[in-house]
Parts: sequence; C-alpha cells; structure tokens
Amino acid sequence: MSSSFGTLFRVSTFGESHGIGVGAVVDGCPPNLELSEADIQPQLDRRRPGQSDLTTPRQEADRVAILSGVENGLTLGTPIGLLVRNKDQRPGDYGEMSQVPRPSHADYTYQVKYGIRASSGGGRSSARETIGRVAAGAIAEKVLRQFWGVEIVAWVSSIGSVRCGEVDVETLDRRQVDAHITRCPDPEAAERMAETVREVRDAADSIGGVVSCVCRNVPAGWGEPVFDKLEAELARAMLSLPATKGFEIGSGFAGTELLGSQHNDPFVARQGRLGTLTNHAGGVLGGISSGEPLLFRVAFKPVATIGKSQRTVDFAGKSATLEAKGRHDPCVVPRAVPIVETMAALVLVDAALRQQARQL
Amino acid sequence: MSSSFGTLFRVSTFGESHGIGVGAVVDGCPPNLELSEADIQPQLDRRRPGQSDLTTPRQEADRVAILSGVENGLTLGTPIGLLVRNKDQRPGDYGEMSQVPRPSHADYTYQVKYGIRASSGGGRSSARETIGRVAAGAIAEKVLRQFWGVEIVAWVSSIGSVRCGEVDVETLDRRQVDAHITRCPDPEAAERMAETVREVRDAADSIGGVVSCVCRNVPAGWGEPVFDKLEAELARAMLSLPATKGFEIGSGFAGTELLGSQHNDPFVARQGRLGTLTNHAGGVLGGISSGEPLLFRVAFKPVATIGKSQRTVDFAGKSATLEAKGRHDPCVVPRAVPIVETMAALVLVDAALRQQARQL
Amino acid sequence: MSSSFGTLFRVSTFGESHGIGVGAVVDGCPPNLELSEADIQPQLDRRRPGQSDLTTPRQEADRVAILSGVENGLTLGTPIGLLVRNKDQRPGDYGEMSQVPRPSHADYTYQVKYGIRASSGGGRSSARETIGRVAAGAIAEKVLRQFWGVEIVAWVSSIGSVRCGEVDVETLDRRQVDAHITRCPDPEAAERMAETVREVRDAADSIGGVVSCVCRNVPAGWGEPVFDKLEAELARAMLSLPATKGFEIGSGFAGTELLGSQHNDPFVARQGRLGTLTNHAGGVLGGISSGEPLLFRVAFKPVATIGKSQRTVDFAGKSATLEAKGRHDPCVVPRAVPIVETMAALVLVDAALRQQARQL
Amino acid sequence: MSSSFGTLFRVSTFGESHGIGVGAVVDGCPPNLELSEADIQPQLDRRRPGQSDLTTPRQEADRVAILSGVENGLTLGTPIGLLVRNKDQRPGDYGEMSQVPRPSHADYTYQVKYGIRASSGGGRSSARETIGRVAAGAIAEKVLRQFWGVEIVAWVSSIGSVRCGEVDVETLDRRQVDAHITRCPDPEAAERMAETVREVRDAADSIGGVVSCVCRNVPAGWGEPVFDKLEAELARAMLSLPATKGFEIGSGFAGTELLGSQHNDPFVARQGRLGTLTNHAGGVLGGISSGEPLLFRVAFKPVATIGKSQRTVDFAGKSATLEAKGRHDPCVVPRAVPIVETMAALVLVDAALRQQARQL
Repeated sequence: MSSSFGTLFRVSTFGESHGIGVGAVVDGCPPNLELSEADIQPQLDRRRPGQSDLTTPRQEADRVAILSGVENGLTLGTPIGLLVRNKDQRPGDYGEMSQVPRPSHADYTYQVKYGIRASSGGGRSSARETIGRVAAGAIAEKVLRQFWGVEIVAWVSSIGSVRCGEVDVETLDRRQVDAHITRCPDPEAAERMAETVREVRDAADSIGGVVSCVCRNVPAGWGEPVFDKLEAELARAMLSLPATKGFEIGSGFAGTELLGSQHNDPFVARQGRLGTLTNHAGGVLGGISSGEPLLFRVAFKPVATIGKSQRTVDFAGKSATLEAKGRHDPCVVPRAVPIVETMAALVLVDAALRQQARQL
Repeated sequence: MSSSFGTLFRVSTFGESHGIGVGAVVDGCPPNLELSEADIQPQLDRRRPGQSDLTTPRQEADRVAILSGVENGLTLGTPIGLLVRNKDQRPGDYGEMSQVPRPSHADYTYQVKYGIRASSGGGRSSARETIGRVAAGAIAEKVLRQFWGVEIVAWVSSIGSVRCGEVDVETLDRRQVDAHITRCPDPEAAERMAETVREVRDAADSIGGVVSCVCRNVPAGWGEPVFDKLEAELARAMLSLPATKGFEIGSGFAGTELLGSQHNDPFVARQGRLGTLTNHAGGVLGGISSGEPLLFRVAFKPVATIGKSQRTVDFAGKSATLEAKGRHDPCVVPRAVPIVETMAALVLVDAALRQQARQL
Repeated sequence: MSSSFGTLFRVSTFGESHGIGVGAVVDGCPPNLELSEADIQPQLDRRRPGQSDLTTPRQEADRVAILSGVENGLTLGTPIGLLVRNKDQRPGDYGEMSQVPRPSHADYTYQVKYGIRASSGGGRSSARETIGRVAAGAIAEKVLRQFWGVEIVAWVSSIGSVRCGEVDVETLDRRQVDAHITRCPDPEAAERMAETVREVRDAADSIGGVVSCVCRNVPAGWGEPVFDKLEAELARAMLSLPATKGFEIGSGFAGTELLGSQHNDPFVARQGRLGTLTNHAGGVLGGISSGEPLLFRVAFKPVATIGKSQRTVDFAGKSATLEAKGRHDPCVVPRAVPIVETMAALVLVDAALRQQARQL
Repeated sequence: MSSSFGTLFRVSTFGESHGIGVGAVVDGCPPNLELSEADIQPQLDRRRPGQSDLTTPRQEADRVAILSGVENGLTLGTPIGLLVRNKDQRPGDYGEMSQVPRPSHADYTYQVKYGIRASSGGGRSSARETIGRVAAGAIAEKVLRQFWGVEIVAWVSSIGSVRCGEVDVETLDRRQVDAHITRCPDPEAAERMAETVREVRDAADSIGGVVSCVCRNVPAGWGEPVFDKLEAELARAMLSLPATKGFEIGSGFAGTELLGSQHNDPFVARQGRLGTLTNHAGGVLGGISSGEPLLFRVAFKPVATIGKSQRTVDFAGKSATLEAKGRHDPCVVPRAVPIVETMAALVLVDAALRQQARQL
C-alpha cells in the first residue's frame, strides 16, 4: 500500500526497472476533462534519459499508453490506467553486482526488508519508478491548470557549489528553464554547472544539486491543518523521491537565523484578498496556502552509481571492489525538474479536491 | 481527517488552545503493555511552557488523564483516549487582535479556509495542539523501547547563528540534553544561545533555530518504499509541526555539494549484519532503515508572535498596527525538542508495525 | 485504527463499558454549523437503557460533553471531541464470569486476539461502544438535514416472528416510531411484540428482531462505485454494529426469487429528474444513489446474555455453567433504532462530502 | 479512490468493459511467494462467460498478464500489476441504448454522478470490472492457503425458489461445486435449477439466486473490532459486487426469530483451543474470527439486462421501449461463485496481515 499517494486524487504506481513495464492507476480524476496521451508525454519526455550529454546515454522512449478511464478524449471519472513498457532491458549488465550491495543504493535494505530483491537494476528503487508518478502528475497538472489556473515551475538552483542567480518567480516559465540543458534559468551559472557536470562525468564520478519550485495561482485555503499541512504533504512528496535528502519551504534553514521582526510577512491589501509584503513563509501559514506563491527547495544527493572504483563488502561481509559498468547520470537534477513538478501537482490537486468538499 | 496520523498505530488529536482541553485517541497500540499516566507525563513536562526564563512565563500544568484502553495498568489493545484539560484560558487576552490577522500566523488562512476561526489564540494552529501528539508519542516511544530497544534523542543544534559543537550521537542521552535550559548539549554554545534568547526576549522579538535528532537501534528494514519512505514520513511528520520550515536527513543540503565518491557510504561487516563506514545517508537507503542511526534536522522559524510593534492590515485590508500583549516564547526550539522526538516515535512505531505484518 | 470510520467525515471512537467513559472524535465536520450538546443528546436518550420495561433496568444518563471543535455554538471545522462519562460502573458484577467466556459473546475472541481483555463487561465489545457513534451520528444527521434535507427514519419491523405491517416510507417519522415502546409503528403488531418481549424476559431469555430504515431526500449521485458502493458502505456500517447478522437493501433476499422482468424498476419522469415506478433497488443503482428513498433492513440476533443457565466450558476447556446475574435487555432492537439511523447518517454524510469534492 | 480495497494487502482495480482492458494493482503481497499467471488463470476461467448454455454465449478468453512485482516466479513484495485485455469489444451493440438509461442498471446514476458515462456497455459498472478483483483474489487465496491453510469454497444455494439441500461445509470442495454447470453441489436441486434457468432464458428473462460460502481453517483472532469487524468487511466486500442485494452471516435473518437460549453457541474444548457446539455465529464473535468456519450468504438479484421488451423513459423523460439485443446471462449466480470466493479472500488476507502486525 506504500505505492499509493493521495486521498481523493489517488495515484497507485507499479513496475520494476527491468520488468515488463512501469505505470500507475489514477483514481479520483474529475470527469469530463479532455485528456489524451499527448497531455502526458511532454513531461515524460522532459524526464527521460538521453536528452543531453549531461545525462546517461541510455535511450528510453518511455511512450505512455492510457489503458482505461478515458473515452473519446474525455475522462470518465473512473480510474485511469497508465502503462509505459520497458524497452531498454539489459538484465545482464548488473549481473556481477548481485553479490555486492551497491553503496548508498537500496540493494541491501530491500534484501533485508523483503528477503528478496529484483535481480537487475534497482527494481522499485530505480529512478524508473518515477515514470508512473510523472504520468499521473501530468494529469494532475492539467486539472490544476484548467480549474484554478495553477502554474508549477521547477528549476535547477544549484549543482555542486554552483548556484543559480536571482530568479523572477512571478514570471519564470518552463521554456526559460528548458533553454539550457542544465535546466538552470541563469545562463551564466548554467554554463558553469554544465562544465562541472562534464568534469565530474569524465572523472567517472557524480555530483548533487538543488531543485527549486514555485507554484503560482494557488488559492488561499488549500491544505489540511495539523498532520496533513500543505508543507507537510509537500515535504513527504519530495522526500519520497529517490536521492532526496532535504526539503525547505520559504525561508527554510536560513530563516532560523532571522529575528521574528525580520521574518514576519506583513499583510497588505490585494484585489479582494490579503497578500504579504514579503514571503518568508513560502506561501503557507499554519499548513494552509495563503494565496502567495508556494516556494520550496529540494536537495538531491550525488548519484550513488559511479564508475569510480569503490571499496565495500559483499552481502556476506567479505571485502569487495565495485566499478559500475552501466550508463549512468553524473548528475540527476536536470531530469529531476519535471519530477519535482509532478509531486507538487499531486499534492496540490489532492488538497484542492479536499477543500472543494467543503464548498457546501 | 487531517488530524489523524499513522496506518497501524494511528493517532487522532483534537482540541483548541482556549477550549475545554486538548487530547488524542491512540488506536492500534499493542496490548499487554504496561502503561500509566506516569509514562506520558514526563514528555509533557519537558514540552510545557514556564520551564525557564527562556520560555513563556505562562504556567500550564498539562496533566494528562487516560480515558480508555488501559485497565489495571495494562493496555487492552483498544483505543487509548488521552485528555489534558486547559487551565490557563484567557480568551480576553486576544480580543483586540480579532480584527487584525497576526502576520505569519494562521489567523488569515483559517478564516479563508473555514469561514470561521477560534476567537482566542490560535485554536488548532496553536502550539498547544502538539500536546495530544506528545502524549501519544510517549506511548509510541514506550512500545519502541520495549520491543526493539529504540532510543530517540533530540537536541538544539542551533539558535540564530549560534551552533552547537560536535555531538556524540552514539551516546547522547536526554539527561545530557536537559542539563542546560536551552537543551543544547554543548555547554559553551548553550550559554551563548541562552544569552541570545535573553537579548531577543528583552527586545520584544523572537528568534529561530534548528533541532537535530538521532534514533538509535532502529533495525534495518523499516519504512515502506516509494511514497511512504521512512525519510518521507519523517519529513511529513516534522513539517506538520507548527513553525517548521525545513527538514534534512543525513548529509542534507550540504550533501548536494559533494561528489558521489565522497558521499557514498561504503559497507562494512558488523555483527551479523552490514553497517556503513560513514553515514551520509542518515540511516536510510531507498526509504528503508539501514540499521545505522537515523539522523535528521528540523528548521524552526522565529516565533511569529512578538511584542514589537508591527505594521500590517486588518481583515478588511485597512492599515493597522499590532503589538502582542500576551506572554510568548522568544524562542521555541528548547520546547520543540520533545515534540520532534514525539513525531519521530510516531513515524517509527507505525513503520515497525507495518514491517511486523511481513514476518509471516 | 479499526475504531475509525469515514474518509472525509471521519469518526474515531474510544472507551470501554466499565472505564472512565466512552466518546468519539469527529474530524471533517463542515465549519459554521450551529451545534451544541442539545443537538446530540436526543439520540443518546433514545439509545440509552432504562426507557421502558422492555429494556434493561440499568439507568445510564449518558450525558454528552463537547470537548472541542465548537465555539460560541458554531463548529470551527476542527475535530469535535465528544465524551460521555460512565456512571453505572459495577466491575464486581461480572467478576465471577471471568474464567468462563460467555457463549456468543466476544470474551473468547478478544482474549485470543489481544492476549488480554477488559475484566468487566464487554469492554469495547459492549453495546456501550455505540455511544460514541450515536453522538457522532447526531452531528452527521444535522449536516445532512441542513445542507440536503435528508431524513433518516428507522423502525422495528419484526421481533421474533411478529412482523410490523405495511409502513408508509414516504411519510413515516420518528414521532410515530417512538409512539410505542417497541418502536414498531404498527400499533397492533407493536402490542404483540411487547408481549413477546415480556414473555421472553420473564423466561430469563432473549429474542432477536429486524430494524428497517428509510433515508429520504438523498440526491442522486452519492456513493462511490466499485468497492465503496453506497450499499457496500451501508452493509459494512450495519454489520459493524454489535449483534447484527444480516443486511439487505431493496428487494434483498426475497428479490432473488423474482424474474428480471418483475424486479426491474422502470424509469419515470419526475420533476427535473428521473424516478422509478417501483423501488426494488432500494434507492441505489451500481453503488450510486438514484434519488429514490434508500430502504434497507438489518438483522439483530437475540442478545447473548441471558439469565437462563447455560452449559459451556471455561477458558481451560473445563465444563462450566453460566447464569448471568446482571441487568440485561431481553430484546435489543427498540434501542437499536437510533443506532441504525446513526450508522446510516455516518455513511451518507461521508458520501455527500466525497461527491461534493467533484462539484468543480 | 473508490477502486481500492484493503489496508495492508491493497487492491486497486481499473478498466472499462469496452476499453483496452481491465486489471488491478496488488500492493502489499508478501515477498518470496511463488507466483505465475498459472495461479491466477483458473479463477478467471471459472468466472468467464461462455462456460455453459446457462451463461451468456459471449466468448471472452480473459488471459491475465503479470506486469510487475514478480521475478523468476517469485513475488518481490512490490506492487503486482495485472492486465487482462478486452477482446470481445463491440461498442456498436449498445449504441441504440445510449439515449435510454437501462432500468435497474447504472446508466442513469453514473450520468448524474459524473456528467458522463462510458458509451458502450456498463463501463465500470459492468461485471467485467470484477476481473481485476478475481485476479487479485487468486493471489490472496494463495497467500492464505500457503501461510494458514485457509480454504474458501462458495456454491450456489438457490436459484429463484429452487434451493440446494444440506451441504457438508466441513468437506465441500470446488471440484464438487464445479461438477454441475449451476455450481450447486446438490445434484437433484442443480438439475431443477438448470431447468429453471433455461426456461427463463428462453423467455428472454432473467432470475436471481443466492451464493453461500464457507471459509475453513481461519484461525481465531482475525478481524478488527468496532468498525472493521470481520463480518462488516465481508458484508462490504459482498455488497460491493454488482447485482448483490443482501448479506447474512451465520443464522442471519432467520436467527432473528430464535431465542437467546437457542441461538447461543456453547463453547466446547477442541485441541488446544475452544470451539462451539453449534455455529449460529457463522464463525465470528464481536467482529473477530472464532476458529469455527466462516459461513455467509449473498443475495444476487435477477440480471437487469433482459431481452423482453420494457417500458421506461429516456434521459429526457420521454416514454421509450427497450429490448436488449446483446448476449446476456439469464442467471449470474453460477459465475458469481468464484467472485464471492475472491472477495472473501481479499477480506481475509488483509485481516490476517493486520493481525500479524500484533505478533510482537
């Protein structure tokens, strides 16, 4: 049951990296929404490997098929089955690793938890697992856009120690983000990031980074207080992504050094509602959206699979040396951008429907 | 339903800050566990205000009563009702604020979400809401200790820009943490923190900080992959606490600057299991506990209620000035320590029971 | 977690029959609803023992107190804590039974399941557990009445082999039902039922019966297809009540003997919607309300506790004889009437809110 | 979210009758279980149409494919994707009905609920929706058999007014049930049932019936008290099946006419546990399995689709006449037998895992 997400808009994913395919079932999508594979494929394309020389050279087409829940281009309100068949299966590639759990991978913990694990690749712990999410998230985004005009844009705000400059979060769009293969909208920083990634790649190593995200036009009132606060659901959603190690919203960790008189966001009158002069809150107050843009950041560790030789031990505890032979991303954050957007969309659409149930 | 947490060990909290009382119902506690109010009161005492001159001078005894689920000192396996009556109700104190939503508080968002809000204090958005959690968490901790020997210790790792020095996470205990009123186990830093808080308090201001937490003796194999990863549940739990703005596990945001070859934790043989030489992972791999200590940090913003005069607007959008009259914490993090432990315990006990269901 | 019910309007109950009290937490109640104890007490009064010579002579006042979620007579949208303190505790009464599991009671199964059980009375398996439900259900009923005009009326349709005559389900109200102590609205049958119960009571025995229920003004469109069909949720709700052994909706078991051409309900035009000429369906089609009255029946077995001597065995398997000393209902169905209404209300209010979430 | 069932062993189904396919995702299946399509196909074969002249002549092969969660013949503990492609799509067949909601079908209620419905056949309200359940249920049955030796056998106990004679529920097996095309294990009654169905079929009509079910070797202690009682979950599961109108367990409605002294099941010593002399309870006490066989019955109404001409109205309320042209079952109960077994298995496996979580 750990592969389901959401209360009213519920996504259940399935699929191993080297099995027949990966996919999702989306239950609770509003009926009468225009929907086809063409609404879903773009985010899958932004996610797939092989988009530039910064990512793994693996080529995966990742074509989605809608199995149910849509007829004549309209959603029926019933579960939407989504399937992406695995193309580039090479079970053999990983064979030699099977006796040695890869450091900082989930081989060891899956084996302990289940007493078994997928023989090739990461199985469910592989990044391919996110394909089902991205397909579902594209539907969530469409619902959010159509009924509330919500816009979600993520971008790469750092790779290693290279930081993106100031970004105008009121206007940033995906075209600007995608203008550079790093998905960093600051051209100068983007170039330095690309350079960093190439260096790391050539050293058969990997490097981490941070993805930032803004959600605009989220009405005030979304998010359920106490345990299901909007920021809590976002944090959970982001930390459920492979390779993530941190989440912050608004002022985040830096805000802990501020005084209350500096950090508090004074209210100001906006058209028909209240806004805030500053947005240290990151768009949430008490777990509920305030009407200001949601702003959060997600930390991604360096990819665990590296070509460099690593000293470790095998499952029996005997010394071993690992050198990954496969084709791997030296830096995952450019491809993580649509995945972060996806999880934001899944959180928001569920919050929206839960609040909708109160509009009696 | 947003006031419930957990799948098999489920806590449902209730209560406003200025109503009759606050409490919780704990469903799914294992039967035949020795339990009385004496097991619960200590964490409530560590959480309550008025413990030192660094916290609000409000005196709240916060005595818990067990209403059900326990007989002759043993749990029955049935829901445990917990009630803490509110003593220090002063609805009048907040009266004048009612037309002006307090900046960086939830007054505005509750009003928009529900079309109504508690007339005094924060209602459910008040820190008093955490009392029900802490009572429930004390039970969770007892279960974890008794069946698995799990130890959970949180401490203050920074206040403003004052940082706690190195801490031995293998041995740190609550006695050491409580040795200083700041709950920072580094005596020298603790003194500087206390000084900072007093300065801030005297300036009628507030300041934020970071709480760190270690969970020891968590067996490998807890946590449910994909959406319910252990780190995802921890992130959600922590961001569900009032005033939190960030969460990081293991290397966190700093880890994004490392290379994979630096960040990867090589496996080593331990007695009957594998451990890791380093613990950048923070005790989780692929959402599952690795057997290494869980290590995470939570960012708390400066308390929003300050005595200092603030320019803002009222609900109608008209300019207004606010000066809090009440008795408030200049810094919440010392009292947040048991609350962070509480949420960690609630996450872990649920993960433990979910994994237990697999021991066929 | 088995003590929670509902997705958006969620009730969590707690409390043993001989502990401090019983109660519930209602999460998800719409805000701004006028609510006080006076809205809840009447159904508790209809449920309590000691109302006539047909029920147990135990006198339990069962006064409800609202602990949270309501301020100045209005719901806040936050969890509503409800508590009824136990008055008539006599732990001693049951002492002698403790070595002998009462036949057709839950003593044995609780002991096996939990390895412990409440020492007095039924604990959670007692009919007192329904108090928390009834209190919550009264709130649900108020929501249903206020926003949709829903009317729920249950009545006793049989006791033993005495059957209630034809009832006009379009107009039947609670006043008519309560006109006779049996809660059978057919005066002649009611008298014979009362006679039956008195005979059974005097023989230190007990007898079963059937409660029927109609829900009027339920709009078409409530109920979630597939697993959460409206009739499925009603069946679950009713079979979750102590002493129930059956549920049927519309034509029920008798309908299995009809031909399709007899059983099908032809559609007819009603004002602005379609109705049906007959209502063998009982108001649901494919798990969704049709706009016709919901009609269902619930079977209650004879109360298990009887004064008559019973041959059985003790927990060790040794022969034993039981003679209940306490004060018990010879027939539970008159008091079950408000409890059936309660569960219907809890099912409907949740279905209503879930459908409301689709009104985009 | 209404297409999901279960807490720890969770099934999510998808698919319309005339779309690409139907299927399910099973999350929470224990790892290391031998599993292949060959474990699932037999129950799908028992469910499919075209098995005899008593069912619809439609031929649907209904071959299942496992998409994920199984590798080298063993379950991985991860979600098991299951897909059955629709073969016999004839969207045209139903075209003419689209303006006229079929009486006692879900056309009208789906249209009101969603504002749209599948253009052909029943979509999600079709009996084809149960294919995903049956596939999932076959896995549940294998888990139950392997770890606890649970045996589930359902049979036809009546069609119309023809009743099956006494059945030995301790020994009845599926071979005996399948010996006759009616799935009634009483040969003489079976012949009369077949005759009845043929008469009804030749009259272009339909008829209802009752399916009974026994679950043996269910250990004492399964089922969660209060709202998730075992009988409540069974009732919900059965009433979630298309065309069901009633559920009873043990003595059911007939038991309401008994005295307590007749109905109570005296305990007797069995090997190492207590049993009961009689089993009016149907294997449950207080919502928890007692160790005695579970015994319940499910009422199926006559199939709504009949060839006979029916007077009704169209969606606009205008008079219309309907005559189904398709190929339909005159009586659904023989094919319902494996579906009832399926739902029993889904309930029991979830109860088993929930109880397993208590075995600390």
